[in-house]
Amino acid sequence: MIDRADRPNENSAKIMVLLLKPGTEPAANWIAEFKCFMPELEVRVWPEIGNPADIEIVLVSYLPFGELAKLPNLQLILSLPVGLDHILDDPNLPKGIPIARTVHPDGDPMMVEYAVMNVLRHHRQLPKYHEFQHARTWKKLPQTPAEKRRVGIMGLGVYGTAIAQALGRFGFQLAGWTRRPKILKDVENFAGSESLSRFLERSEILIIMLPLTRETNGLLNAKNLAYLPKGAMIINMSRGPILVEQDLLTALDSGQIDSVTLDVFEVEPLPAESPLWMHPRVTITPHIGGISRSTTSAPIVVENIRCLQEGRPLINLVDPEAGY
Amino acid sequence: MIDRADRPNENSAKIMVLLLKPGTEPAANWIAEFKCFMPELEVRVWPEIGNPADIEIVLVSYLPFGELAKLPNLQLILSLPVGLDHILDDPNLPKGIPIARTVHPDGDPMMVEYAVMNVLRHHRQLPKYHEFQHARTWKKLPQTPAEKRRVGIMGLGVYGTAIAQALGRFGFQLAGWTRRPKILKDVENFAGSESLSRFLERSEILIIMLPLTRETNGLLNAKNLAYLPKGAMIINMSRGPILVEQDLLTALDSGQIDSVTLDVFEVEPLPAESPLWMHPRVTITPHIGGISRSTTSAPIVVENIRCLQEGRPLINLVDPEAGY
Repeated sequence: MIDRADRPNENSAKIMVLLLKPGTEPAANWIAEFKCFMPELEVRVWPEIGNPADIEIVLVSYLPFGELAKLPNLQLILSLPVGLDHILDDPNLPKGIPIARTVHPDGDPMMVEYAVMNVLRHHRQLPKYHEFQHARTWKKLPQTPAEKRRVGIMGLGVYGTAIAQALGRFGFQLAGWTRRPKILKDVENFAGSESLSRFLERSEILIIMLPLTRETNGLLNAKNLAYLPKGAMIINMSRGPILVEQDLLTALDSGQIDSVTLDVFEVEPLPAESPLWMHPRVTITPHIGGISRSTTSAPIVVENIRCLQEGRPLINLVDPEAGY
Repeated sequence: MIDRADRPNENSAKIMVLLLKPGTEPAANWIAEFKCFMPELEVRVWPEIGNPADIEIVLVSYLPFGELAKLPNLQLILSLPVGLDHILDDPNLPKGIPIARTVHPDGDPMMVEYAVMNVLRHHRQLPKYHEFQHARTWKKLPQTPAEKRRVGIMGLGVYGTAIAQALGRFGFQLAGWTRRPKILKDVENFAGSESLSRFLERSEILIIMLPLTRETNGLLNAKNLAYLPKGAMIINMSRGPILVEQDLLTALDSGQIDSVTLDVFEVEPLPAESPLWMHPRVTITPHIGGISRSTTSAPIVVENIRCLQEGRPLINLVDPEAGY
């Protein structure tokens, strides 16, 4: 927790204006947190922005493209979602304005919960047991122990790293695929596109934690899905377009992929006519893996605003070129 | 791992005869492990017992009642299942023969996996999201954070304690109900029957890890289920008869219980006509929570046989009076 009494107050007395476009959580929750941590902050809730020239900071989830370009005095863009594509893909994104994330630098506990729950579900073959239940069939399956189960995590940023650490406690054989080499204890590293096929070949359960960038868009297509061991399982919890849905359906029907859990989709909400809804080996959740929460994120937002006011380096900054 | 080279060999050279009745794992796996750790052990596989007077040790899962009484020179009963009712409920159980468990004294990693998977499933409302999926409905539910989610564990033996420790890492509010007071870090303790109602009143997600004894048989009946907060969730992973199935169905239909995951049942295999199979808020698995495994258990079995041979105190001993 950030205690206001600990901080010099000269600069923070300046009233700044923040434009909020919340995600699933109501604006009132955020406003209540700011009242507590930075009562002098003026919060406006999109689309009631008042004079666009007043806005110095935005805290946004999926603001329509073009809106940021209308704010001439914008100094800081804060993203509620972990993925930055909702900002970086804006063709009119104003250049040179720092962009930062709002979640805890140690990772999002909600995403760790979601990843562990689903790795264990696939590891313990729960989708198959659900099928048995629907057929009123009592049947035990042979079970691979965790220390022989090979789990692969694509993307080892703050979030992927927290997931790897939580999975490590169960004794899984872990590997991570990253753009640049990344050394984590007990996690075999595969870096760069030339190592992708070898990483996929050893991954029985694959977790997609990559950001959506030009390089990752469509990365898991028919060609790359074919590198996975037969009967592999996939959990996509970052961005839908990384996994080509038509190629996934083909791989599910051929048995190349055993089962998948999808929290994200090429189009969201997932259209009612998508064949994914009714596929017996597809589990669907409506983009609930990570949930940015005002109680945990507001102190980090406030800390970043104070850094801005006091000329200190910003935290959780994003590299717009890399896309994360 | 137990290294034979470390031990004095005078006594262990005596050939002992063990009768094996394995569970789901084939006898050949156990025999291979014993070849490695105690090659002088003579293993007979039930029902091919030869001369009953030869048998000194049994390693058994659900041997028919009355069989143990036929072994006049029995010195040690080793149970593959965690629950001892398959031995203790035998009306002809020979008196005074030590009974010991065979799993690792630190708990069973398979049971920890099963408990964490299912607590997270209920915590993250996966049964409801499955219903939404079947209706092709994209809908996000409000989500309680782990630090406000009250999880109650009935039974804090070796297994319940390992589960509590694994759940603690997710930040849940934990409590345990035990026969005698048991102090664990960050786990509120409720001991004895007089505290049962208060324990149940605070438990939104209830994990049943109790042994089946005269006291626990039918413990979770209509009266006690009514103490749970409305919309509670239950995971039964120890023994079916502790939870009265008819009372559970009534509580599910009234909304008192939101959803359950059952690995154990009053009658196993669960009869095809049971209404539990098709209940939309019941998840059924066929008694797969804990799986005794030869690779992890054989060294503990061998260690106990050496203790017997050398007159040292046996490990993992069970108190037949308490039932665990």
